[in-house]
Amino acid sequence: MIQEYLKLHEQEILEDLFSLLRIPSVSSDAGHHEDMLRCAACWETLLQKAGADEVQILPTAGNPVVFAWKKVNPNLPTVMVYGHYDVMPPEPFELWKTEPFEPVIKDGHIWGRGADDDKGQSFMHYVAFRYLCESGSLPCNVKFLLEGEEEISSPSLEQFCVEHRDLLACDYVLVSDTSMLSADTPSITTGLRGLAYWQLEVTSACRDLHSGIFGGAVANPINELCKLIARMQDDSGRIMILHFYDDVENVSDEEKTLISQIPFDEEQYKTDLGIRNTHGEAGYSTIERTGIRPTFDVCGIWGGYTGEGTKTVLPAKAFAKLSTRLVPHQRSQVIGKLMEEYVKQIAPDYVQVKLTYLHGAESYVCPIDLPAYKAAEAAYTKVFGKRPLPVRRGGSIGVVAVFEKVLGVKSILMGFGLESDAIHSPNENFPLFMFRTGIETITEFYGQLKNYL
Amino acid sequence: MIQEYLKLHEQEILEDLFSLLRIPSVSSDAGHHEDMLRCAACWETLLQKAGADEVQILPTAGNPVVFAWKKVNPNLPTVMVYGHYDVMPPEPFELWKTEPFEPVIKDGHIWGRGADDDKGQSFMHYVAFRYLCESGSLPCNVKFLLEGEEEISSPSLEQFCVEHRDLLACDYVLVSDTSMLSADTPSITTGLRGLAYWQLEVTSACRDLHSGIFGGAVANPINELCKLIARMQDDSGRIMILHFYDDVENVSDEEKTLISQIPFDEEQYKTDLGIRNTHGEAGYSTIERTGIRPTFDVCGIWGGYTGEGTKTVLPAKAFAKLSTRLVPHQRSQVIGKLMEEYVKQIAPDYVQVKLTYLHGAESYVCPIDLPAYKAAEAAYTKVFGKRPLPVRRGGSIGVVAVFEKVLGVKSILMGFGLESDAIHSPNENFPLFMFRTGIETITEFYGQLKNYL
Repeated sequence: MIQEYLKLHEQEILEDLFSLLRIPSVSSDAGHHEDMLRCAACWETLLQKAGADEVQILPTAGNPVVFAWKKVNPNLPTVMVYGHYDVMPPEPFELWKTEPFEPVIKDGHIWGRGADDDKGQSFMHYVAFRYLCESGSLPCNVKFLLEGEEEISSPSLEQFCVEHRDLLACDYVLVSDTSMLSADTPSITTGLRGLAYWQLEVTSACRDLHSGIFGGAVANPINELCKLIARMQDDSGRIMILHFYDDVENVSDEEKTLISQIPFDEEQYKTDLGIRNTHGEAGYSTIERTGIRPTFDVCGIWGGYTGEGTKTVLPAKAFAKLSTRLVPHQRSQVIGKLMEEYVKQIAPDYVQVKLTYLHGAESYVCPIDLPAYKAAEAAYTKVFGKRPLPVRRGGSIGVVAVFEKVLGVKSILMGFGLESDAIHSPNENFPLFMFRTGIETITEFYGQLKNYL
Repeated sequence: MIQEYLKLHEQEILEDLFSLLRIPSVSSDAGHHEDMLRCAACWETLLQKAGADEVQILPTAGNPVVFAWKKVNPNLPTVMVYGHYDVMPPEPFELWKTEPFEPVIKDGHIWGRGADDDKGQSFMHYVAFRYLCESGSLPCNVKFLLEGEEEISSPSLEQFCVEHRDLLACDYVLVSDTSMLSADTPSITTGLRGLAYWQLEVTSACRDLHSGIFGGAVANPINELCKLIARMQDDSGRIMILHFYDDVENVSDEEKTLISQIPFDEEQYKTDLGIRNTHGEAGYSTIERTGIRPTFDVCGIWGGYTGEGTKTVLPAKAFAKLSTRLVPHQRSQVIGKLMEEYVKQIAPDYVQVKLTYLHGAESYVCPIDLPAYKAAEAAYTKVFGKRPLPVRRGGSIGVVAVFEKVLGVKSILMGFGLESDAIHSPNENFPLFMFRTGIETITEFYGQLKNYL
């Protein structure tokens, strides 16, 4: 039984996970290149130990992919586990209560960058896989594909899939990189939003100027940047990029009714996040706003004097990182063009405005009558004692759209994250009970698979 | 003759100036407290060497004041030289071509933070004073008041003046902390703008959030901060704080005509600053916009992810440093209140908006029929070979309003800065020829004084 296996090997399992968590594999920072290679090598060692027949570190245009294959029987179906070994930057450091890359167990949680996203979650597949290999009870062939660029929108993965189409051939992809509604409301993500991400730069003079001597006659790039950003959404929260909503999927009344049945406590949500009120596009509920509607968020902004006290300056430049989350039928490349045209249209002629498209990802929908979805549903029902709700979530995992497009397979998003895991934030963590329950559910999924395929 | 004196002592004079420039006396950063004390002590030594009868370092609520007094004859008038020994922060470091606190002479300029503002300019008074002491040709009593908080709006100086009203008694204040129109268009500043400065902070959730999971339903503090800033000015550049313009001085048509006669090459201005076009309040010229009209400038902004590449995050907080330049009759405290009310009115209720008033300074006007102004005018005319133009400039030196209010004396703003000096910016510098010409003009001012007083 998996429960006994976990108890028996707990020490070793956690030590193996910690060996991954200790590596600062931050993909968005070129300074961490060596750490990416170390992290890939660490996964290679683990997958060999688990019982894979072959493990390879394969080059891509960016960070390498770790690929593993357990060949049980060519007549059986093949499941491919997808995960990523890169993590988000740990900043701001000062808000962490523990060291981001010194994982610790405290109060029943694993604390550290990647504890959930996605080292913790993909490591649960490793444990289930190792258990099934060791107990000789794998009912299918299993592949692992672990990439190192998910947090920067997987720029190399599509090309990698095209080049290794045969090697990656499979019937379903399993992904644990999403979250559940709550610990006692299990859910499976059936939709993900896409993403388009830009940097916007406004330049006025060729150097910082004295705001007294030049202020009022020379445009201030921060004032101008703020005006541009303010023109991205109207007062009702609608995005004002022209034709932005043209391809947005109109969700049926039936699905809207299903969405409205998802248990959701808005007051609890507000309390948990410490917000005065929710806020978003007029005419939509919180679940709709984060699930079926696109968004516009400034992820970062900077310019001028940001130190202690006062400094009067008319800065030369101001910068912002802009992102939109996209819903089914919106294409990131199309949105990229629309944004370019809109910025061109609204940019004032007395400053230089530079828009750089940095990354994109496509949205995804998983039908709930898919056999593998049903196997996952049965596994959750057995382990959690409740049937999991199918929900569309707001995050983006561009690769599931790539797997569909290039490999022709659907992904099952068996995510075990919780909102309190603080992924992408300081004090990322993963509860030990969810770590164990997730491993049980994944193990059970393999058990259920034969009933549905 | 002062020219010969300068040639003979050039080495020593520059070495003395460099001893001031080497001290990072950044008043806005509490970490530089020791440097403030070192800089005051350095000035004390210099003024003793120059021949002052008494030199004192006097405490204030903040950084100390250096006070010096040369008592020539109690029946003669007294001139007080005002300057400041604090400097602006050197950031951004990466744009400096030399070390900000390692002054060097290159291409006929002195390079370093404070080379002009205000160590360089106040040091010119020191040299002229020393020469006049040594040659026994001082026609009046002279005091020096050097403060260490000008760049943070002189928070302690008013109280200091009140407490030392008798010690500081004088007939005129001389200030060299402004600039001229250009090297061949000498000018004397007859007006300065006031200032009000705030920090604005927008808080949404209690921690950074995943922009995919929460984006669209939880307000983004950067989006909201930008919207607030965008609402500070309308499309014509008019400031929208209610009643902001109520006290703005209506400049007479006669003065407007004088302003329009100031030689000004808009194309050259644009080329020098590298801007596509000037931009400001509709209906006013560049000289008017920087001289007689108030402004709204964001001096700094920050929030979210500002590193390399992409990070999708819905940040918890966003910050901005806001400033307005004020014109005669506008009072910084009144503007502070108006801003507070306006922000309260426009702030959305779903985020926390915190406005902190950081500093203020009052505007100033110097009448051009003042005897001491006429002496300065005569000195410029003799040394530059041209009559200096009286101009209202956009900068703020709050203390001149304090001197008027507390000591009942007017200040003569004999500034020798040039736009190319890059004060408050990287690569601050001061041309050696202006350093010498300024010392000659100040010396000549003392010579002219007896003709006008």
